[in-house]
Amino acid sequence: MSDAKIEQYKIRQEPYYEAVANEVELYEAAYNARMPVMLKGPTGCGKSRFVEYMAWKLGRPLITVACNEDMTASDLVGRFLLDKEGTVWQDGPLTTAARIGAICYLDEVVEARQDTTVVIHPLTDHRRTLPLDKKGEVIEAHEDFQLVISYNPGYQSLMKDLKQSTKQRFGAMDFDYPEAATEANIVARETGVDKAVAEKLVQIAHRARNLKGHGLDEGISTRLLVYAGQLINKGVDPLAACSMTLVRPLTDDPDMRDTLDAAVGTYFG
Amino acid sequence: MSDAKIEQYKIRQEPYYEAVANEVELYEAAYNARMPVMLKGPTGCGKSRFVEYMAWKLGRPLITVACNEDMTASDLVGRFLLDKEGTVWQDGPLTTAARIGAICYLDEVVEARQDTTVVIHPLTDHRRTLPLDKKGEVIEAHEDFQLVISYNPGYQSLMKDLKQSTKQRFGAMDFDYPEAATEANIVARETGVDKAVAEKLVQIAHRARNLKGHGLDEGISTRLLVYAGQLINKGVDPLAACSMTLVRPLTDDPDMRDTLDAAVGTYFG
Amino acid sequence: MSDAKIEQYKIRQEPYYEAVANEVELYEAAYNARMPVMLKGPTGCGKSRFVEYMAWKLGRPLITVACNEDMTASDLVGRFLLDKEGTVWQDGPLTTAARIGAICYLDEVVEARQDTTVVIHPLTDHRRTLPLDKKGEVIEAHEDFQLVISYNPGYQSLMKDLKQSTKQRFGAMDFDYPEAATEANIVARETGVDKAVAEKLVQIAHRARNLKGHGLDEGISTRLLVYAGQLINKGVDPLAACSMTLVRPLTDDPDMRDTLDAAVGTYFG
Amino acid sequence: MSDAKIEQYKIRQEPYYEAVANEVELYEAAYNARMPVMLKGPTGCGKSRFVEYMAWKLGRPLITVACNEDMTASDLVGRFLLDKEGTVWQDGPLTTAARIGAICYLDEVVEARQDTTVVIHPLTDHRRTLPLDKKGEVIEAHEDFQLVISYNPGYQSLMKDLKQSTKQRFGAMDFDYPEAATEANIVARETGVDKAVAEKLVQIAHRARNLKGHGLDEGISTRLLVYAGQLINKGVDPLAACSMTLVRPLTDDPDMRDTLDAAVGTYFG
Amino acid sequence: MSDAKIEQYKIRQEPYYEAVANEVELYEAAYNARMPVMLKGPTGCGKSRFVEYMAWKLGRPLITVACNEDMTASDLVGRFLLDKEGTVWQDGPLTTAARIGAICYLDEVVEARQDTTVVIHPLTDHRRTLPLDKKGEVIEAHEDFQLVISYNPGYQSLMKDLKQSTKQRFGAMDFDYPEAATEANIVARETGVDKAVAEKLVQIAHRARNLKGHGLDEGISTRLLVYAGQLINKGVDPLAACSMTLVRPLTDDPDMRDTLDAAVGTYFG
Amino acid sequence: MSDAKIEQYKIRQEPYYEAVANEVELYEAAYNARMPVMLKGPTGCGKSRFVEYMAWKLGRPLITVACNEDMTASDLVGRFLLDKEGTVWQDGPLTTAARIGAICYLDEVVEARQDTTVVIHPLTDHRRTLPLDKKGEVIEAHEDFQLVISYNPGYQSLMKDLKQSTKQRFGAMDFDYPEAATEANIVARETGVDKAVAEKLVQIAHRARNLKGHGLDEGISTRLLVYAGQLINKGVDPLAACSMTLVRPLTDDPDMRDTLDAAVGTYFG
Repeated sequence: MSDAKIEQYKIRQEPYYEAVANEVELYEAAYNARMPVMLKGPTGCGKSRFVEYMAWKLGRPLITVACNEDMTASDLVGRFLLDKEGTVWQDGPLTTAARIGAICYLDEVVEARQDTTVVIHPLTDHRRTLPLDKKGEVIEAHEDFQLVISYNPGYQSLMKDLKQSTKQRFGAMDFDYPEAATEANIVARETGVDKAVAEKLVQIAHRARNLKGHGLDEGISTRLLVYAGQLINKGVDPLAACSMTLVRPLTDDPDMRDTLDAAVGTYFG
Repeated sequence: MSDAKIEQYKIRQEPYYEAVANEVELYEAAYNARMPVMLKGPTGCGKSRFVEYMAWKLGRPLITVACNEDMTASDLVGRFLLDKEGTVWQDGPLTTAARIGAICYLDEVVEARQDTTVVIHPLTDHRRTLPLDKKGEVIEAHEDFQLVISYNPGYQSLMKDLKQSTKQRFGAMDFDYPEAATEANIVARETGVDKAVAEKLVQIAHRARNLKGHGLDEGISTRLLVYAGQLINKGVDPLAACSMTLVRPLTDDPDMRDTLDAAVGTYFG
Repeated sequence: MSDAKIEQYKIRQEPYYEAVANEVELYEAAYNARMPVMLKGPTGCGKSRFVEYMAWKLGRPLITVACNEDMTASDLVGRFLLDKEGTVWQDGPLTTAARIGAICYLDEVVEARQDTTVVIHPLTDHRRTLPLDKKGEVIEAHEDFQLVISYNPGYQSLMKDLKQSTKQRFGAMDFDYPEAATEANIVARETGVDKAVAEKLVQIAHRARNLKGHGLDEGISTRLLVYAGQLINKGVDPLAACSMTLVRPLTDDPDMRDTLDAAVGTYFG
Repeated sequence: MSDAKIEQYKIRQEPYYEAVANEVELYEAAYNARMPVMLKGPTGCGKSRFVEYMAWKLGRPLITVACNEDMTASDLVGRFLLDKEGTVWQDGPLTTAARIGAICYLDEVVEARQDTTVVIHPLTDHRRTLPLDKKGEVIEAHEDFQLVISYNPGYQSLMKDLKQSTKQRFGAMDFDYPEAATEANIVARETGVDKAVAEKLVQIAHRARNLKGHGLDEGISTRLLVYAGQLINKGVDPLAACSMTLVRPLTDDPDMRDTLDAAVGTYFG
Repeated sequence: MSDAKIEQYKIRQEPYYEAVANEVELYEAAYNARMPVMLKGPTGCGKSRFVEYMAWKLGRPLITVACNEDMTASDLVGRFLLDKEGTVWQDGPLTTAARIGAICYLDEVVEARQDTTVVIHPLTDHRRTLPLDKKGEVIEAHEDFQLVISYNPGYQSLMKDLKQSTKQRFGAMDFDYPEAATEANIVARETGVDKAVAEKLVQIAHRARNLKGHGLDEGISTRLLVYAGQLINKGVDPLAACSMTLVRPLTDDPDMRDTLDAAVGTYFG
Repeated sequence: MSDAKIEQYKIRQEPYYEAVANEVELYEAAYNARMPVMLKGPTGCGKSRFVEYMAWKLGRPLITVACNEDMTASDLVGRFLLDKEGTVWQDGPLTTAARIGAICYLDEVVEARQDTTVVIHPLTDHRRTLPLDKKGEVIEAHEDFQLVISYNPGYQSLMKDLKQSTKQRFGAMDFDYPEAATEANIVARETGVDKAVAEKLVQIAHRARNLKGHGLDEGISTRLLVYAGQLINKGVDPLAACSMTLVRPLTDDPDMRDTLDAAVGTYFG
């Protein structure tokens, strides 16, 4: 694989990330042991951003794969393609990561079919190998390779959960929405609105997050707060901006919408 | 991609669209922030027309994809085809849109399989990238690219809904049938019938829309009113025209048909 | 596409069709507006024959597709085939119809998978386009193209129905078995039996049709009456002919068979 | 298609068939009208043999297809295969039959998927055409072509039945096991045992057939009687021969086996 | 097909088989009539060995196919493969057997999908043909060809059973574990342990077989006794050897394990 | 197959393995009889490590396959690939193992589809053959070949279990977590922490293992203890290290987390 191809997986500029606790050090220790890591937490709380930040900090290429229930092991490992010379093997993203020593981030891995999760087993124990069964080749992971997966505990149903034989291959780190002050910093920094507006948005989010499990499936994510700030910064009326970004995406239930609209009105009315 | 190919996605003449509220300005602000947008509302209330209008107004090419439950991620992203030189990659509509800076409109996205919805995630956050896993390439979206999806809240079942981790990537706008006067304008303009006939048709529609949830799954759309007007304009008896376009398409229930026929008779009897 | 290929879809001689009411004029008006049309009615009541007649009358080629639950969008739109030059695109019947300006008749469309029904959406609104996603091409329908579908309301289950967003794209026409005199004319004309025999067959059919929903799933179709007449005309005993064509195909329930046999005996005993 | 290929579908010598009633004449009349025919009756009562006999008598080639739930429309109609020149079309058995004017016999058609049954529709009405959608060709059936299907009413479940729109395309003939004397003739003729032994075997079969629905799913077929006769004729003890061919294939229930063994003992004990 | 290829299916040395009753003669008579045969009995009672023995005795090649629920008709009949000349047909094991006059043994045929079982129908009646539908060829079975299937009545669920129209194509033979003395002979002969040890092992097996249906799904097979004898013969402690081969493979239920361990202790304690 | 390819399956250095009882001798006896072996036990108790150790001790190459529910027989046996010369056969891992005389280890075989488990049958009885049905070839296993499978009894559901006809082809060995002293040795040796820390970690594991079935699906594996030791050895606070590796991977239940955290606090608080 050419250096140019490796370069495209490098994080070129420092992603904005505010540490909450000791997660950066903990991750570094895990990476130094090349321990596979599982990031747990709700939608939009910053798991993907954290991995990007760590990849930048550690200077490793990052290969992200959004898992889904139609993804097969071949989508991860690779497949034969027909070329003018006949079939040629093409590495999948996991194989590429194992070869070049990247951090491979499997986002929402529980969505994938079981063959996808089983395929990572030999990469996550003392073997650190990836058998390409279809090619009759066993590759040994680059010494810098590390596997990271994300997992949203709130989503898992009885039908769809990681097997214990998979879970017990990972150290696990919990994530949650950032503290109010940190989150307001993020919103202000990413949208250009002033601190007061950012704090109001965060307070609306806190109200909504308290409704999780009481009518809302999930609270308002930091991403949606950024959306709201962006619209307000472009001159959109805050009530309209919040309705579009903080209320309507979350729910179609009229009562919940009223409750959320009232919360918005409290701060921007 | 040649300019000719881009041209075919441009809207050549201004689509007829009457704004209801501040939706045009709101969309423009969202587009300026390249915020992904979700359009919510019932069948035939003008969501597709609105996107077309905005694409025309913003001078962007528009690529529309009608989603369905058999659509795979490859249908969106692209696939390898066999050529005389071997396999060649062919971009799917989403990839094309990301490359040329089009607005990509995924109509009724909830119908699609999960791999289709997950594939849009990296395009809808700060990364704005689309990994072509099968090709081992990561493309960065053109700076003018925007993603828009539609969503009919009335249709969603417990089994089939967007995941919160998808929903929270979009600002959302509600749509509904136009106001009576606006809708009559549309019908008259698009069919050539006079104002009085158009108003009668709209009043029939209002009666039917009140029956939604009371025997009808969905109210009469503006499109069906246009059909009725077209037949009347070609000399078809209004009762026959309304029966063919406003009553029979909607329901096979004899009582509901009687009720609707009676409503037609009130205005054209 | 060569003219020879178009010719094969032309109806070469006038199909025998007796109009029941104003359906011919109504259809002509709909065709003149290029309005998509949905034909509703029970099995064997003449929907397919009517479309053929209209195609002949309007001088348009007719492409009929018998839909089924294993049919994919590619079966309608087209697919890539491997040629000695590599892959070549081959139009499906819907694409062919859109290109040559044919009437495309999708028989029992509700049987098809959803991707088949969704694919017709852009052809059935103001766009009149058909995106060949796999080919990266958007074709505009020929100005003479029209889409017609059939739909048997008695068959639809809760699980399998057209979506409102599909239904509201069509004007709808109801069909039923022809009047007794008309049907006797048809039977006599198509089989060569005399009027008295034809009338008896029609009367047997009427008895059976009254049993629909009371032990029979469906009444005797005109087609079966023609079968009976053909056998009688070839010298088969009317009781044996009716048993073979009007009783045994319909039901295996001994009581229903006795009831139907008795009806036959009343007229031919 | 070469004559040699047609020849292989011809029945070379007269199949042994004893007519029960007017079924031969009735079938001939149906064939003369090219009416599609449905043969109804239990397993092993001679439906396949009857079709063979009629094909021999009418001098037509016969193409038999054993339908099954994994059979697709392509298995019947044909498909593209890759040749050194690229893809070449290969006719399926139904297409072959339509081209060469054979009788096409679809055995147990209800087992097939719906696309298989729908594909025969245009061959079974006034059109007598077979659209090869994938090839973009419509073939007209040879004037000698006829379609025959078999159907075992006892087998059909609620989930798996022919649709009325399929059933009403066929004249139907009932079949059952032959009369005792006829059946004994058949057994004696096909196995070489003497008349007395053959009659005993038939009487055992009659006892078993009375148990259908009372512990047996199906009675003893004529084929099994022939098996018994063959073993007896080769010197096997009649009790052992009947146990192997008339009892053990039918049931594993110990009580039913005792009952059947007792019946065998009555005649051969 | 070259003689070398046929040779590989020949049984080169006499398999060890001890006849229990008249099964050898009965099978020979059935083979002489080329009657299809179904072997019924529990796991590991010697059905496969019996077929091998008969193939050796009759001097016929034997082709064995282990059926499973993912096996398709093509796996049996054959398929087209891509060669440098284009597609070439490759016979499946059933086709090969029919061509070379082998005995074809379909092990646990009920596991296969229905298309697999239906495909054998024309080979199992007077036709003795195998239509290769995909190739447009009908092959006639070699005069020495015979079809044999196995069937474990204890396994069949309501969902998965052979259809009567399949069952009634076979003569059936019951198999069970051998008599105690015979089984001890087998164990001693195949493992080298002395008669006394072999008899103890058989007595343990008898105890376990009595538990079938009372906590065990299946009794101890002769194969497992041979495993036990082999370990003992290699110097393994009989208690450890029996635990490994007669107890742990059968069940994970602690109570059943205790019961079986106690039985072992009675003889080897 | 080249020697180089064989070499890659050889275990190059002695894996660290502490014997618990007579399992090494028992396995050697089984291997000497080439008896197929089934390893039973919970996740992470050392089954894979044991097979590796035995392969090293016996000097045999080891081919490991992680089974999963999407794995097909072809994934094990091999398939045809398209080459510039046409199709070429490529051995799967099982075929490779049978050819080169490797130990083939099918990890969690019960996850695989039935065709995968059935395909091993002829390799696990006196035949020791592997029919490559798709290639029309029967290969005889190398005299050093042995098959080993793993099986976690706690995982099997009613829906997914090995068939008795598969189970009875294997000698079975039970595995469990190592004794406390042994396990502490392992943790200390693999992580570099001192004996005291290792013993504390093992005691925490014992507490958690007692909760299996009382709120935990599975106990803490030795692997997780090693993870904990690695982090502690890198200077991470033991409480944080245990939380990340012993608590969060196992459960998301707040009460169970408290219980486990308390156990950690007892030893490291």
